Amino acid sequence: MKIVVLKFGGTSVGTIERIKKVANIIISYIRKRYKVIVVSSAMSGITNDLIKKSKKISNNFDTSEYDVLVSTGEQIACSLISGRLNHLGYKSKSYMGWQIPIITSGTYGSSRITNINVKKINKFLKLGGIPVITGFQGVNLNLRVTTLGRGGSDASAIMLSKFFKAQKCIIYTDVDGVYTTDPNALKNAKKIKIISYEEMLEMASLGAKVMQPASIQDARLNRIDIDVKSSFSKKNGTKITKKKNIISNKIIRGISFTKNDAKVTLIGIKDKPGIAAAIFKPLSLNSINVDMVVQNISANGKETDLTFTIKSEDLYKTQKLIKKNRKIKFRNLIFDKNVSKVSIIGVGMITTPGVTYRMFQALAKKNINILVISTSEIKISVLINKKNITKAISVLHKEFKLDK
Amino acid sequence: MKIVVLKFGGTSVGTIERIKKVANIIISYIRKRYKVIVVSSAMSGITNDLIKKSKKISNNFDTSEYDVLVSTGEQIACSLISGRLNHLGYKSKSYMGWQIPIITSGTYGSSRITNINVKKINKFLKLGGIPVITGFQGVNLNLRVTTLGRGGSDASAIMLSKFFKAQKCIIYTDVDGVYTTDPNALKNAKKIKIISYEEMLEMASLGAKVMQPASIQDARLNRIDIDVKSSFSKKNGTKITKKKNIISNKIIRGISFTKNDAKVTLIGIKDKPGIAAAIFKPLSLNSINVDMVVQNISANGKETDLTFTIKSEDLYKTQKLIKKNRKIKFRNLIFDKNVSKVSIIGVGMITTPGVTYRMFQALAKKNINILVISTSEIKISVLINKKNITKAISVLHKEFKLDK
Repeated sequence: MKIVVLKFGGTSVGTIERIKKVANIIISYIRKRYKVIVVSSAMSGITNDLIKKSKKISNNFDTSEYDVLVSTGEQIACSLISGRLNHLGYKSKSYMGWQIPIITSGTYGSSRITNINVKKINKFLKLGGIPVITGFQGVNLNLRVTTLGRGGSDASAIMLSKFFKAQKCIIYTDVDGVYTTDPNALKNAKKIKIISYEEMLEMASLGAKVMQPASIQDARLNRIDIDVKSSFSKKNGTKITKKKNIISNKIIRGISFTKNDAKVTLIGIKDKPGIAAAIFKPLSLNSINVDMVVQNISANGKETDLTFTIKSEDLYKTQKLIKKNRKIKFRNLIFDKNVSKVSIIGVGMITTPGVTYRMFQALAKKNINILVISTSEIKISVLINKKNITKAISVLHKEFKLDK
Repeated sequence: MKIVVLKFGGTSVGTIERIKKVANIIISYIRKRYKVIVVSSAMSGITNDLIKKSKKISNNFDTSEYDVLVSTGEQIACSLISGRLNHLGYKSKSYMGWQIPIITSGTYGSSRITNINVKKINKFLKLGGIPVITGFQGVNLNLRVTTLGRGGSDASAIMLSKFFKAQKCIIYTDVDGVYTTDPNALKNAKKIKIISYEEMLEMASLGAKVMQPASIQDARLNRIDIDVKSSFSKKNGTKITKKKNIISNKIIRGISFTKNDAKVTLIGIKDKPGIAAAIFKPLSLNSINVDMVVQNISANGKETDLTFTIKSEDLYKTQKLIKKNRKIKFRNLIFDKNVSKVSIIGVGMITTPGVTYRMFQALAKKNINILVISTSEIKISVLINKKNITKAISVLHKEFKLDK
């Protein structure tokens, strides 16, 4: 069987009119002789409305009942899609997680799919049926409803593709693909036709609008190609696939950036082993994520400075934790919320020397000062003053020929 | 185990505030050392909203998917009730039909409960848990979601009471019981403390606001006592029970009436066997319910008149069917939409002669003309001009001492 998994996000099924369009998209694949497995999110707005209700009932709503509550959103969407397909003369049935079953493990609200029984759905596919499966949910071994957490419907699509050995997995969303950088920040941004899982993961700050990193990682581990497309247009989207499938003359594939980082500098801390650990331990215990870190070389062998970045929203908490940390001493504590992290991403840099130099040179020419640097195999990130962000994106986009 | 089944209707769980009140009612039974099984309808409005959506998708929405769609309403209500009970420190879980399972048979949209597996719920009750079960639904043997049709949550409550051998079944609704007649029609109407299944069934026109006839019939067949109460007040409600439990000095227990009947008279039809059947067959084939029928005694042995009543909404269709019916001949066809059926109901009339006479006498004194009469063992109905309805109810209420 030539199976395609089609996943529709919340805005793609956001209104009755959109659901009718989605039914037409599904039928276009049936006409191409695919066996289609549909996965749907809840109609946009419905899940938030349910969450609001739960908060009014309790500020500490039972997690198991929370899953029972919010899982109704996908059930509604799937029955409407299936109802539409039947209306148009196609044989279709909705399936909730428990009916297949889609087995999950882990805690309520953030479970993971561990197994999918393919028997019932395969039988239905062979009879020419179109199964419409609720994304974002399953059941655990106690037969209680579980949900998969944010972006969970993407995870459902990836795991269904894996268990049903689908030829294609297409994620329909409200953007038409992944761009070299945010088109809102740079008009010249170009759609990327094909991108590797690894690059996509590094571009999370842009890609989050397209797919959650956890699902991309699932796809990477299971070697499932993903097409990201808009259900609102007929344009080609972006394919996310293995590195070796990508033939590109571009060293850099995209530029991502953040807007809500903050920089923290401790001046005059003791230069001794374990000092960084002493600083970061209470942050980690309070779920504060430290991103970039740089420690200056000690001038006198006794004292040094340490700079790191965190999310702006964690700034107040971080400040408090450092001040009451008795294991560290420092002369001065400096905060800066006017910073941005700009990253260039591309698997090409593994085999191409001089990328770092070109990046720094391009920024320097525009008088953009680099505050902190961090690198990975396929990414170079620099921290700059927030006011320079548009200029930085523009010059790097040009330097690495992303607008061509 | 001392088990009580508490059923809450749509308005009783219509808002978050109402759901919080419902949780308090449930806890009051736990404090009285009952094991409580909760059954809930959907929050009022939600089901109608879902039905609207289905109609926009298709004017002929697939019945199986319709059940998947509307069943989410009860799922939402139950998770919120259960969430509230957990919030207040009580152990509670929601259960959908498939989780128990509640097995149904019959067609989608109007299935009937055939079996309920008590194992899982009994185990939970013994552990001190409060199960909150979705009313109105179950699963069929193909593991597809089914719903029970209008008033289906009452049916769920009755069948749960049966299978769990509940000591009490309490239907919480938005009226505080059954009245001798509609309080909107007669200020003097009194609440009935205890009423038999049979009387309640005959009072369907009043009782429909309280419970659907099919559920009353289920309760009667399974000998389950029902308390009907308001979740909005602490007043005592009405108990529906076996005839022999009722000790009352009242011959008549209640007065019901209709407001949307129509009378049809065929003048000058042939007085021969089979003529009534020839008239009613096409009506029956078109699902038109004929209620009261009266055929005059033929004066000349050749011709006679036939009068019957139907629902007003069927009048146009009836007119058409009679006119194109070639098996009957008549001189004249008369319609009257200004009629009402008034019924007096009471098991007491079985053993008390003269009730019919008292009814007719009372109406005659007020110059109310009787157009058609029909009787059953515990009910006498008369058709009168609609303009006399308030007067008729008032005089009969007094005659049979219902206001005392």
